[in-house]
Amino acid sequence: MVKYSGALDTTFGALADPTRRAILAMLMQGQASITELAKPHQMSLPAVMKHVRVLEHAGLVSQRKMGRTRRCQLAAQPLKDAEEWLSHYRVFWERQFDALERFLKEEETKENSKWQHRNRNKKPHSN
Amino acid sequence: MVKYSGALDTTFGALADPTRRAILAMLMQGQASITELAKPHQMSLPAVMKHVRVLEHAGLVSQRKMGRTRRCQLAAQPLKDAEEWLSHYRVFWERQFDALERFLKEEETKENSKWQHRNRNKKPHSN
Repeated sequence: MVKYSGALDTTFGALADPTRRAILAMLMQGQASITELAKPHQMSLPAVMKHVRVLEHAGLVSQRKMGRTRRCQLAAQPLKDAEEWLSHYRVFWERQFDALERFLKEEETKENSKWQHRNRNKKPHSN
Repeated sequence: MVKYSGALDTTFGALADPTRRAILAMLMQGQASITELAKPHQMSLPAVMKHVRVLEHAGLVSQRKMGRTRRCQLAAQPLKDAEEWLSHYRVFWERQFDALERFLKEEETKENSKWQHRNRNKKPHSN
């Protein structure tokens, strides 16, 4: 349980950065080298490597040596675990949005009946 | 888009701590005061308040003054947004787990046929 909790710490920590999320999005399309990952960002290679290391530490990316270059690839398990943790709250947000919808419908009904009542009590125009 | 990305930064950042996740889990059961939230943790009230402020800044918790105490309540939207972001990767992890399952089945079939082949070629015992 502690290990799992610690894993969620590093997963969520790694996801709390737009460059790292962009790297994961790129890796979803397939393996890539550090140079390829750096291309869309105005960043030095060491800066991108630092981000990749954070992702690697969180188990979100693995690196494989192929000849003289290293290829990075996305690892799915930590993302699945994080989504599983968040999904426990689905019941809560669905309940909260249902309550909001009910409230808005009730307000609409109230407004409509007020409007009808006002129109009924209005004197007809005499031409 | 930038705002949405920034919101995800603060959401994931806020979720990267076990105490803050425990506070959210407690608030899923209903509203609570800071003193009630502090009870399960061996932590000072100011330390818990600091965590609540991080959650509040991420829009995950809202505070309401009721008489002389403040009640905290869970807000669902950022959790829903984070889950939505993660769910884009579902296709990826399902594909990855399917590939692993296929690989393991193929290995099992290979092992079985090797075993059958070995047994067929074995000389029967002569008693």
